[in-house]
Amino acid sequence: MRAYHLHDFSGPEGWRLADVPTPKPGPGEVLVRVRAASLNFRDLMISKGQYNPHFKLPLVPMSDGAGEVVENGPGASRFKPGDRVSCNFMARWVDGPVDDFKAKSALGGEIPGMLAEEVVLPECGLIGLPDSLTFEEAATLPCAGVTAWHALFETGGVRPGQTIVTQGTGGVSIFALQFGKLAGLRVIVTSSSDAKLERARSMGAAETINYKSTPDWEKPVRAMTGGVGADLVVELGGAGTLPKSLRAVRTGGKVAMIGVLSGAGPGVDPVPILIRGIRLQGVFVGSRSMFEDMLRAIEFHQIKPVIDRVFPFEQAVDALRHLESGSHFGKVVIKV
Amino acid sequence: MRAYHLHDFSGPEGWRLADVPTPKPGPGEVLVRVRAASLNFRDLMISKGQYNPHFKLPLVPMSDGAGEVVENGPGASRFKPGDRVSCNFMARWVDGPVDDFKAKSALGGEIPGMLAEEVVLPECGLIGLPDSLTFEEAATLPCAGVTAWHALFETGGVRPGQTIVTQGTGGVSIFALQFGKLAGLRVIVTSSSDAKLERARSMGAAETINYKSTPDWEKPVRAMTGGVGADLVVELGGAGTLPKSLRAVRTGGKVAMIGVLSGAGPGVDPVPILIRGIRLQGVFVGSRSMFEDMLRAIEFHQIKPVIDRVFPFEQAVDALRHLESGSHFGKVVIKV
Amino acid sequence: MRAYHLHDFSGPEGWRLADVPTPKPGPGEVLVRVRAASLNFRDLMISKGQYNPHFKLPLVPMSDGAGEVVENGPGASRFKPGDRVSCNFMARWVDGPVDDFKAKSALGGEIPGMLAEEVVLPECGLIGLPDSLTFEEAATLPCAGVTAWHALFETGGVRPGQTIVTQGTGGVSIFALQFGKLAGLRVIVTSSSDAKLERARSMGAAETINYKSTPDWEKPVRAMTGGVGADLVVELGGAGTLPKSLRAVRTGGKVAMIGVLSGAGPGVDPVPILIRGIRLQGVFVGSRSMFEDMLRAIEFHQIKPVIDRVFPFEQAVDALRHLESGSHFGKVVIKV
Amino acid sequence: MRAYHLHDFSGPEGWRLADVPTPKPGPGEVLVRVRAASLNFRDLMISKGQYNPHFKLPLVPMSDGAGEVVENGPGASRFKPGDRVSCNFMARWVDGPVDDFKAKSALGGEIPGMLAEEVVLPECGLIGLPDSLTFEEAATLPCAGVTAWHALFETGGVRPGQTIVTQGTGGVSIFALQFGKLAGLRVIVTSSSDAKLERARSMGAAETINYKSTPDWEKPVRAMTGGVGADLVVELGGAGTLPKSLRAVRTGGKVAMIGVLSGAGPGVDPVPILIRGIRLQGVFVGSRSMFEDMLRAIEFHQIKPVIDRVFPFEQAVDALRHLESGSHFGKVVIKV
Repeated sequence: MRAYHLHDFSGPEGWRLADVPTPKPGPGEVLVRVRAASLNFRDLMISKGQYNPHFKLPLVPMSDGAGEVVENGPGASRFKPGDRVSCNFMARWVDGPVDDFKAKSALGGEIPGMLAEEVVLPECGLIGLPDSLTFEEAATLPCAGVTAWHALFETGGVRPGQTIVTQGTGGVSIFALQFGKLAGLRVIVTSSSDAKLERARSMGAAETINYKSTPDWEKPVRAMTGGVGADLVVELGGAGTLPKSLRAVRTGGKVAMIGVLSGAGPGVDPVPILIRGIRLQGVFVGSRSMFEDMLRAIEFHQIKPVIDRVFPFEQAVDALRHLESGSHFGKVVIKV
Repeated sequence: MRAYHLHDFSGPEGWRLADVPTPKPGPGEVLVRVRAASLNFRDLMISKGQYNPHFKLPLVPMSDGAGEVVENGPGASRFKPGDRVSCNFMARWVDGPVDDFKAKSALGGEIPGMLAEEVVLPECGLIGLPDSLTFEEAATLPCAGVTAWHALFETGGVRPGQTIVTQGTGGVSIFALQFGKLAGLRVIVTSSSDAKLERARSMGAAETINYKSTPDWEKPVRAMTGGVGADLVVELGGAGTLPKSLRAVRTGGKVAMIGVLSGAGPGVDPVPILIRGIRLQGVFVGSRSMFEDMLRAIEFHQIKPVIDRVFPFEQAVDALRHLESGSHFGKVVIKV
Repeated sequence: MRAYHLHDFSGPEGWRLADVPTPKPGPGEVLVRVRAASLNFRDLMISKGQYNPHFKLPLVPMSDGAGEVVENGPGASRFKPGDRVSCNFMARWVDGPVDDFKAKSALGGEIPGMLAEEVVLPECGLIGLPDSLTFEEAATLPCAGVTAWHALFETGGVRPGQTIVTQGTGGVSIFALQFGKLAGLRVIVTSSSDAKLERARSMGAAETINYKSTPDWEKPVRAMTGGVGADLVVELGGAGTLPKSLRAVRTGGKVAMIGVLSGAGPGVDPVPILIRGIRLQGVFVGSRSMFEDMLRAIEFHQIKPVIDRVFPFEQAVDALRHLESGSHFGKVVIKV
Repeated sequence: MRAYHLHDFSGPEGWRLADVPTPKPGPGEVLVRVRAASLNFRDLMISKGQYNPHFKLPLVPMSDGAGEVVENGPGASRFKPGDRVSCNFMARWVDGPVDDFKAKSALGGEIPGMLAEEVVLPECGLIGLPDSLTFEEAATLPCAGVTAWHALFETGGVRPGQTIVTQGTGGVSIFALQFGKLAGLRVIVTSSSDAKLERARSMGAAETINYKSTPDWEKPVRAMTGGVGADLVVELGGAGTLPKSLRAVRTGGKVAMIGVLSGAGPGVDPVPILIRGIRLQGVFVGSRSMFEDMLRAIEFHQIKPVIDRVFPFEQAVDALRHLESGSHFGKVVIKV
């Protein structure tokens, strides 16, 4: 079978296609025929050595994918050959709170990823897929979908009528918009592109703010909430936007810290966090249980993940370069 | 001004209209001109002495209403004359968890109720009303609306895609349906009337069950959830329906115990609660903070409370008899 | 090796010792040499068919034990031969909330129990033991210890200075006393024996009540708390004591529903639960994660489980009869 | 009566004693004869204009004190003359989560403080004192005690056996040590003084670290917890220590952000918060309800607040200079 390997931290060019033997599932493992995979910003950072320079090379990239069960290893019994499945971002985070053991099982990093025709995965990480989702759609969910779900419903504890702000129109943000709408929230989306904001409005964003024309975007957020501030900010920009997020959120509110897009930046002043009793919560994807909760909602409401573009397997490097360009809206998918 | 008094525990006939002097607001109190009031099953039980036989008579009945501020007592400053307001069911439960001090401030029981042209209320219990709600609509919210909100979002901690069951088509149940739909839940409604179930479906109930033709309604609930059971049951029937609710809910699920409709009954077997790790949570209306959260959602989504019928002030006894008949769908209102 | 089997639901006599082949650990399983086991009231009920008449016979009884790892099955790697371990009551409940899959893995019921010289267990259920605990001591923890931990720290969410009531002086109750004292709680113990209450006081009970001489024990509980009631009642009696527990607990308080000692009884009136906003929470043992949290506290504070008496393996039936007599204080252990 | 006023932001010298008329309690207010007040680092910062330069001058300084009720204003009825009371740091934060309305009622800032012989306070902020506490002891609690309580039991949700780190030996940290010990926690204290660490050990600190001789104090914290990290860090240093706290805490752990001691510093890198799923929670004192919970624990366990030194009313400026020197261990009190 064919698989991509990241050979060095040279960026997209570090991904190279190779013919390799089909791996054999060990006890408690499952062999999966991958049908689609989807890109995250993390994949780009890993390829450049910006994410975790200690990852062992070569590695099979990409955390997100979907496919069919081919064969159960000894003792594996949750699924049977032919079942349509995806895998949780951290294969060992089944439920409960995160810990180091669970955290160190992320696909495309600590364990081999989905950019291969066949992959062996621990059965505890697998999730059955509803018929309403194609492989391409299902492949978009593990990282961006679960992250947005975690931020809104585990960290946020949101309820209808609350206001959230989500930054940009990448994968996590668009899922936050879709899930927020489902949950009766008032969703404010920020972006530097009026065209993307228009599209966000057509998807149900209650308010949109162009942070290029309105750099102090926290001010309209406060104005839109009667001076109170948002209940939750889905913080995707990192240190560059966090100071504004801390002003955009209400006293006693929450900031779900997700993004690494804008780098470490100048650092964050902790005083407003203290004085205004804010909760700054790191959200690093989530558990299989969150994934299952999310899938149930997606199926019941027939939510369709927003796919920006689908690339063939052979053009995976182009797909990664497309993500790097930042021109996408929603998820970039590779058909396997 | 005119006010009704409950003179004895003789049922609806115990309500008698009288001319009484306008009360004077003391420190921290507010005089309110009532414009509408709405009935709850509790009002009927109180009139019959079935609710709390220790209430001191005569009392001004009804917990739920809406009106305009007339005059602030000394030190009261949250509102100004002319402001449109409602009052929390327990005037002293502002926020945080309930305790005896808060609980013993319910309108139409421990303190005078809303079935009067003018009423003096503690300012801490008042809530400003959005323009989108008429007085009649706002009057439906304090008991039934807040109870449903509390059950779903405080007790239930629900998230999109979860399944809830709500029993019947009275005030609480219809609000649970409306709020559940807002929050992306799959709402199952039970009733003994196919016509009412039809109406519930038209309002967004995902599934309906006639408990007369299907007395073991917990079975279809389990079937509809793949054998797992509902995440939350809004239990309005009391001891009569609780055993079925305990079978309808999933292992580890929640039953919000609200209703007193079917009386104490034969009692509840605690074994399933234990073995299946169920949380049975008494929900007795809620705090002003929950009311404010609910109002924000109602205003954002332009939710319209379902009013069964509006009676004039002079026909309050007829209104109470109408409630007693059980033929209503949604709330019975009295214009003041 | 030798193992007991429950052959029929005839009570303690249904336990019979047999020579059986040593089982072989499959994928993800571990062979454990049992060194001690400890009895719970559940073991007695199971032997009489009162617990779950659908359990398949013959079964190896007893959920609680401790021993040493002999051999890992394929893929098992969490422990190595010689490691001292115990096993979670539900072998598959690792962490997160309970569900049917996790619940249906209880030792001595759904899967073979600990009353055998050797037992095969899923590695996910095993827990490493600190040196500070003997096998006999460690064997007391899985059911009674974890249940008390779950009730106090997961359900109760207790904090120092709060008042809890725990009923009787059986295994769960004595652990609740020990853990409650650790956590700075004011622990009230009830019993029908002044001698046992004296012993509870010597272990740190702040107050004790003899429910034989004071049948309305909820009254002193309220008096001891300034009329407010206890924050948490560890309800071990079942339907027989629940009505009193509901009066002993404060408005907005919690009752951890554990016991089945007094049978289903006449049932429970749900009205006080509703009116006083009480949470009645079924607590059915707990997760491996709770077990690990508990072990950490036990080790740090050098807590010694209270062992009533240790019986040799050959006298297991006598041990069960001793438990049946109700004369014990703390846990009854069988050395294997 | 005599009162101190802060006249300008010149530091301790800005405090000047004056003869002023006794204020009159308005509706819902209470006149209190202050008997003792206690200093916090905030008082020093306010005097220098470093805390909130928008506070209106002159202001009566100090948030913390205790005294006796002299007279109820109209409608005030929670206490009677002669009752011993303290006042919550934010007089309007009774319970529930913080919001702007509650936050803007802090004594010695938004409303007049306790450094006066008599003070008028909103009755909703008052708390009755147990006989076991002297006025001097009670005066130490409102800011430092409640902050530590909030951090451990609201934010931390700690349970016995967990590990917390608390920084330094000022008021909050010593209370965190005392409360942590009550709750069965393993408390690690850091300080630059071996003498102070010795004293912390004598009070029950499980481990101590001199951060001067061990600047990378997060390393021994990780070593003491088997490489896992602490469950909670009580962060009192601000930006200067936060990066280390983020390494000292476990994956999925919590940092209670309290201190402003070391200033805004170079800022905080948000990446570890994200990657390790850490919760960074701003803790700004707490509600009256938390204060009452804390008092109950203090009374039950007969906890004695640690008083460094008591100054007479006339030497308040010296007391503030003593605090500024940083040589104290525990609380600095002024007798009024």
